[in-house]
Amino acid sequence: MTTQMEFARRGVLTEEVKTIAAAEGVPPEFVMRGVAEGRIVVTRNLVRREMKPLGIGEGLRVKVNANIGTSKDICDPDRELEKAKAAMESGADTLMDLSTGGDLDAIRRRILKEVPIALGTVPIYQVAIEAQEKHGAIVNMTEDDIFNVIERHMKDGVDFITVHCGITRESVRRVIERKRLLGVVSRGGTFLTAWILKNEKENPLYSNFEYLLELAKDYDVVLSLGDGLRPGCISDATDSPQIQELLIIGELVERARKAGVQTMVEGPGHVPLDQIEANVKLEKSICAGAPFYVLGPLVTDVAPGYDHIVGAIGGAVAAMAGADYLCYVTPTEHIALPDLEDVREGVIVAKIAAHAADLTRRRESSLSWDYSISKARADLNWEEQIRLAINPEKVRKIRELRYPKKIEEVCTMCGEFCAIKLLKEYTRAEH
Amino acid sequence: MTTQMEFARRGVLTEEVKTIAAAEGVPPEFVMRGVAEGRIVVTRNLVRREMKPLGIGEGLRVKVNANIGTSKDICDPDRELEKAKAAMESGADTLMDLSTGGDLDAIRRRILKEVPIALGTVPIYQVAIEAQEKHGAIVNMTEDDIFNVIERHMKDGVDFITVHCGITRESVRRVIERKRLLGVVSRGGTFLTAWILKNEKENPLYSNFEYLLELAKDYDVVLSLGDGLRPGCISDATDSPQIQELLIIGELVERARKAGVQTMVEGPGHVPLDQIEANVKLEKSICAGAPFYVLGPLVTDVAPGYDHIVGAIGGAVAAMAGADYLCYVTPTEHIALPDLEDVREGVIVAKIAAHAADLTRRRESSLSWDYSISKARADLNWEEQIRLAINPEKVRKIRELRYPKKIEEVCTMCGEFCAIKLLKEYTRAEH
Repeated sequence: MTTQMEFARRGVLTEEVKTIAAAEGVPPEFVMRGVAEGRIVVTRNLVRREMKPLGIGEGLRVKVNANIGTSKDICDPDRELEKAKAAMESGADTLMDLSTGGDLDAIRRRILKEVPIALGTVPIYQVAIEAQEKHGAIVNMTEDDIFNVIERHMKDGVDFITVHCGITRESVRRVIERKRLLGVVSRGGTFLTAWILKNEKENPLYSNFEYLLELAKDYDVVLSLGDGLRPGCISDATDSPQIQELLIIGELVERARKAGVQTMVEGPGHVPLDQIEANVKLEKSICAGAPFYVLGPLVTDVAPGYDHIVGAIGGAVAAMAGADYLCYVTPTEHIALPDLEDVREGVIVAKIAAHAADLTRRRESSLSWDYSISKARADLNWEEQIRLAINPEKVRKIRELRYPKKIEEVCTMCGEFCAIKLLKEYTRAEH
Repeated sequence: MTTQMEFARRGVLTEEVKTIAAAEGVPPEFVMRGVAEGRIVVTRNLVRREMKPLGIGEGLRVKVNANIGTSKDICDPDRELEKAKAAMESGADTLMDLSTGGDLDAIRRRILKEVPIALGTVPIYQVAIEAQEKHGAIVNMTEDDIFNVIERHMKDGVDFITVHCGITRESVRRVIERKRLLGVVSRGGTFLTAWILKNEKENPLYSNFEYLLELAKDYDVVLSLGDGLRPGCISDATDSPQIQELLIIGELVERARKAGVQTMVEGPGHVPLDQIEANVKLEKSICAGAPFYVLGPLVTDVAPGYDHIVGAIGGAVAAMAGADYLCYVTPTEHIALPDLEDVREGVIVAKIAAHAADLTRRRESSLSWDYSISKARADLNWEEQIRLAINPEKVRKIRELRYPKKIEEVCTMCGEFCAIKLLKEYTRAEH
């Protein structure tokens, strides 16, 4: 037995499961059962034993991921490490290193070494870049290239990897025929689509899925089944290529479970607000409760510069409907590589969405935060309000710049007409 | 006949109704029927004939309000006028002047003169401030003071007023007994609660509601029935004082309709995500379809500094469930008076929420915006993407600061690995 899923199925309460249960405030048996049935994943590579394991899935706190990584245009590994640390400090539960510029192995290894939270990657990016360097074009990547890079990432300690196994010759044909407004917007999905079109062969991640499972099993790496055909705009949302891919992914989840390999499923994308719940319920049904990791969803296309907010609206609704894990979106999505401040804002806003959904579960651990800050508000206790705020620094700054002139216990919005202060005085006078 | 409701009931298609129908892309008869039945309001004071009328309610685009106004601590009328104009330019459909510092009559009149969108006020603020000046304390305000200020606002051309008619001796007794964590957080609600407690009399806005209706009718001012007992934190949400007030408001809506007076109903406040739909359905049922004007709702208490986002999450869900009108929240809510930039951000973020909900109605007028910007994205047409963005200036700034080095048509996130660009090249090569 090597994977958490295998241990859980035999009824072994691992240290990992116990740690997760304690962190979540739920019984260890609950976590174990979830892991056994594939409704909860433990994201920790076997070679990364020093890191605290994280649970993602049904009945647990909604998690938040932050993407960082260099691009060809903006390539500063130190800066990306700073972003990774800032994301963790702002409350990101996991990171994904999506670097496409510079020494990719070195960047990934540095992050694994210096940032002690679960790390995911999309190995196909590196495969494509190396193919371009070695073989002159992305579409010249070989099957061996693909699996070699995947194994390299696993050996390094990557805790989960996105693999676009649901893109097949058949689904590529359908998406091309359908003439979507925005075709394929997933980078990894596009690399594989291009490869399939050029080579007229099946996607190796699909045709050699069993080999992928063997590798994943050796390191207990979670396979995050990527939605390469996710919609890239509102008018492509919840269309047949997207759902076709989901059906294939559902079959792969089943195969992975048979092999004792942990999986989660990635979801859209651009989705109108009233289709989000259906998307979540569909994933949970087709993929038999596998943890759902959503990218947004973005509920409108018209707000570049505000896509962190657009994604928070969608993410909150998705998580309320049962999504388990939100990939943050930054303010610069669709425009540019995020900078340090964009990463911070992206994480905090995604955490707001996750927490808003957690509140709907009415667990004491979620409710008590809101209760405490509101108690501080009722007491006009500013230091405590600031301390408990999701970003204390921001609150302190706003308050200091616009500090009340006369009465310290109120703020400059209502001043002496503060409802809380007035009611206190009048009810005190009454009793 | 003086009010739009009266005309609509007689089957008269007024110019106002025709203008609204044209702006909304719906048949004039649809708007007329909505106005006749009280499901749509036309917010325009009879003395403000030069201003384009606005419709708010069922079947129309979701509207956004921006609050501006001085406070005792930060009192700069020029600055508030700037904010009012910025709010309008950013897309606010209406404004509320909530000034509590300086020459309140002069500020209100300037805004009415210089900003040609519907203006609302909360006259009880001015009543309270004048009572403090004239009679030494807020609780010394008289019934005459209240109705005199209301009439002054109406004469000046205010298009809608918030009146906390649903606060009664009975509901005050209940809210005090209940020991809510955050008692009464509405400023107007607190003034009246304090007045009731001190004077041991019934709320004049309730006991003399018929007189209020007469005044409203003379100017065709919309009465926005304020939720003085709205919850001020998650743990007070959807409690009995809140719902008790809603029941009273439902009765008042009925009385107003009998008098031919237009009303809308204000809603919470702090509400967990999964209680928002219930709140909207309840208002629509109890108040027989009266337009619902929500303040947020805020889906968590823990994020001061980000309450515009917290409110956008709640507002989008509320509007999807049927709320008609979103009051913006700014980043400085709970901390300080907003500045110019906070007002802009507040409006844009509330508009994102409103538009996300509008998309769920699948009307061409809403969908086409998203389609066009996504078409520009598919074409890698940056100028058009920027032009169509909800805030073009912000997109242009981000792009210019992180402009791609090699290939102009992509961005610095994916660079040459741009999925859209790659797919275009490979599908072109294929066909």
